[in-house]
Amino acid sequence: MRDNPYYSQANHGPFETYRLGSFSLEEGGSIPDCDLAYATFGQLNKSKSNAILVLTWYGGTSKIMEQAYIGQGRALDPEKYFIICVNQIGNGLSSSPHNHPCSSADSDFPKVRIGDDVVAQHRLLTQHFELENLALVVVGSMGAQQTYEWAVRYPEMVKRAAAIAGTAQNTDHDFLFTASLVDAITSDPKWRDGKYESHLDVVAGLKRHAGIWAVMGLSTEFYQTQAWRDMGLDSVEQFQTEFLEATFTEMDPNNLLCMAWKWQRGDVARHTAGDLAGALARISAKTFVMPIDEDMFFPPRDCVREQELINDSEIRVLNSVCGHVALFGTEPQFLSQVDENLRELLECDV
Amino acid sequence: MRDNPYYSQANHGPFETYRLGSFSLEEGGSIPDCDLAYATFGQLNKSKSNAILVLTWYGGTSKIMEQAYIGQGRALDPEKYFIICVNQIGNGLSSSPHNHPCSSADSDFPKVRIGDDVVAQHRLLTQHFELENLALVVVGSMGAQQTYEWAVRYPEMVKRAAAIAGTAQNTDHDFLFTASLVDAITSDPKWRDGKYESHLDVVAGLKRHAGIWAVMGLSTEFYQTQAWRDMGLDSVEQFQTEFLEATFTEMDPNNLLCMAWKWQRGDVARHTAGDLAGALARISAKTFVMPIDEDMFFPPRDCVREQELINDSEIRVLNSVCGHVALFGTEPQFLSQVDENLRELLECDV
Repeated sequence: MRDNPYYSQANHGPFETYRLGSFSLEEGGSIPDCDLAYATFGQLNKSKSNAILVLTWYGGTSKIMEQAYIGQGRALDPEKYFIICVNQIGNGLSSSPHNHPCSSADSDFPKVRIGDDVVAQHRLLTQHFELENLALVVVGSMGAQQTYEWAVRYPEMVKRAAAIAGTAQNTDHDFLFTASLVDAITSDPKWRDGKYESHLDVVAGLKRHAGIWAVMGLSTEFYQTQAWRDMGLDSVEQFQTEFLEATFTEMDPNNLLCMAWKWQRGDVARHTAGDLAGALARISAKTFVMPIDEDMFFPPRDCVREQELINDSEIRVLNSVCGHVALFGTEPQFLSQVDENLRELLECDV
Repeated sequence: MRDNPYYSQANHGPFETYRLGSFSLEEGGSIPDCDLAYATFGQLNKSKSNAILVLTWYGGTSKIMEQAYIGQGRALDPEKYFIICVNQIGNGLSSSPHNHPCSSADSDFPKVRIGDDVVAQHRLLTQHFELENLALVVVGSMGAQQTYEWAVRYPEMVKRAAAIAGTAQNTDHDFLFTASLVDAITSDPKWRDGKYESHLDVVAGLKRHAGIWAVMGLSTEFYQTQAWRDMGLDSVEQFQTEFLEATFTEMDPNNLLCMAWKWQRGDVARHTAGDLAGALARISAKTFVMPIDEDMFFPPRDCVREQELINDSEIRVLNSVCGHVALFGTEPQFLSQVDENLRELLECDV
C-alpha cells in the first residue's frame, strides 16, 4: 500500500464503498476484501426503472464523470434518473494496486479483466441496490469496453447502451498504443518492477507516459488549430505540462498498469470463443455507438464495424478536434453533442 | 566513433564520399572533415539538364531509395536521368555521431539543421558535379523537409519538386511525436547520455522507439486489415519484431537522435522571420505535394495548407493503409502511384 492523496475523498468524493469480499477473477486467483467505490446521484423511482450506470475510463474516477456528464438539465439528470457511477478496479478508488493490502508491488496485484469489473458491478447493482434493469449504461473509452461487456453479458438487464469512443473488441493497433504507455512507465528504472516507494519516484516514466498521450490522445488538428487556447492555456508546452503531465503524474503507476493490462485485452468475443459477431448479436439493448471523429486510436471506422453487428444500433459520430481526450469534457460543444444523443437514446422506447 | 557494420558499403553501397572540409552550421560551430555520402545512377547529359536529386528520410540511406524508387522503367529511370542520392548528415553514411572522430557521445556531435544539409548538398552538386539546375528534387518525410528547403533556398536551381509525406514547417504534433521517439532512446539508462559503448547496449530503448513507430508509423487500418500479411509476415508480433525492431535496432542511437533533432525543427520560414507564406512564395519549382492518406503525423490536411501557399503546385494524395511507412515501398500499388505522379511531374514544361 502506498499513500497517495490524489485518490482521497477530498479530491474524488463523496464516494461510497461496497465490499465484495474475496472476489474471484477470470485469470484465476482472487482479490481478498475487494472494494468497489461508487457515487450516486438522484433517487431511484418506485418501479426501479430510472437507474443509469456510468462507468470510468483509464485513469478516470467517478468525479470527472460527475463533473463532465452529470447534472441538472443535462442528459444524465439526477432530477430524473438514479445515476450510479462505479469506479473500475485499479482506478485508485476501488481496490487497486496502490491501496490494497495484498499489494506491495505490481506483480502482487492480480490481473483483472473487463469482465471482472462488470461481474463486480453487477453484484453491486443487483445485491446492494436490488436493481433488475438499467435504463442506460454509458460512458467512454474503457467505460465503453465495460458498456459492451454489460450489454453482452447481461442483455436482459441493459435496456439502452451508449458506447462512446471505445470498442467491444480491442484492436491490435490499440494494443500496441497501450503497450507504448506501459513501456513508458516500466522502463523507468525507478519503477523498480513495481516496488517504488512513492508514485513520485516514477515521475520521469509518468511524464513520458503523458508525452505519448500528447501524441495519440488529441489530434493533429488540435495542435494545428491551437485548440489548447480554448482550455485557457498559452502554449503547447503549457498544455503538455499543466494539463497532461499534471494529470498523470498524480496517479499511481501500478494503478495505471493494472488498467492498461485490462484495456489491452477488452474483448466481448471471450464469451463466444472468439466470434465477435456472435457476441455482439447477444446485445438486445438499444445501442448508440458514438466514436469521436478525430480519435486516433478508436477511430469511427473501427467502431462502425462493430455497430453493424449489433441488432438495434445506430452510429452517432461526435465531432471534436480534441480527439479521444474530448471525453474530458473541456468543450461545451462536445458535451452538447453527447447530451443530445443520450437524450434521444433515453427517449427511445425499449 | 563506434563500429557498426550496418552502415557499411556491403550493406548500403556502393556509395561515394565527398569531403566538404570544415563545415559551418546554422546553430554555430562546425563539423570538421565533414563528409557527404552519395550514390549516383545513370549519366549526366551534355546539357546537364537531366539531374535528379533524391534525399533521405529519418533512418534511411541511399540504399533504400535506390531499392524502392530508382530503376529501369521506373519514374526515376537511370536510362533517362542522372540521379544523385545524397545521404543526410547523421544518417550513418554521411558524417554522423557514430562515425565521426569528433564524436564520442551525443553531446559531442554538433546540432545540425535541415538547412545545413541542403547547403552541404548544394556544394556537392554545384562544386563537384558543376550542376546549374535540377530537373527534380524528391523523396519523402525528412527528404520532403529537405526538398522544401531546396525549393525555398535555391529556387532558381530547382525546376520541379515532389514533397512526399512531409511538411515545409514541422507541426507541433509532429514535434511531440518525435519527442516521444527521442524519449524512448534517451530514457534507456544504457544510453548513458550518449556515451554507450555499442548501439546494442541501447537495444531496449531502440525497441521502445520501434514500438512507438508501430503505433504512429502505420495506420489503424493497417492493423485492422492485417496488411502485414502482404509483407509475408504471419502475425502482428512478427511484424513488430522482424520488421520494425529489426530495422531500428541495427541503427546507432545517437545517429537517430541527431536526425530527430533536425526533423523536429524543419522550417522553411526560418528564411522569412517566421512567415511561412512568404517562404513558400519563393518557390518557383513546379511542385507536387504528395501526402499519404493514412499518414498519422503528416496528414494530408497539414500538407494541403502548405500546398495552397505554393504558386505552381498541385496536391496529389497517395493511398496506402501502411500510412507513413508506405514510403518503405513494400506495396507495388503504392510505388505505382508515386511513379505515375513523378512521371507526370517530370513531363511538365518548366
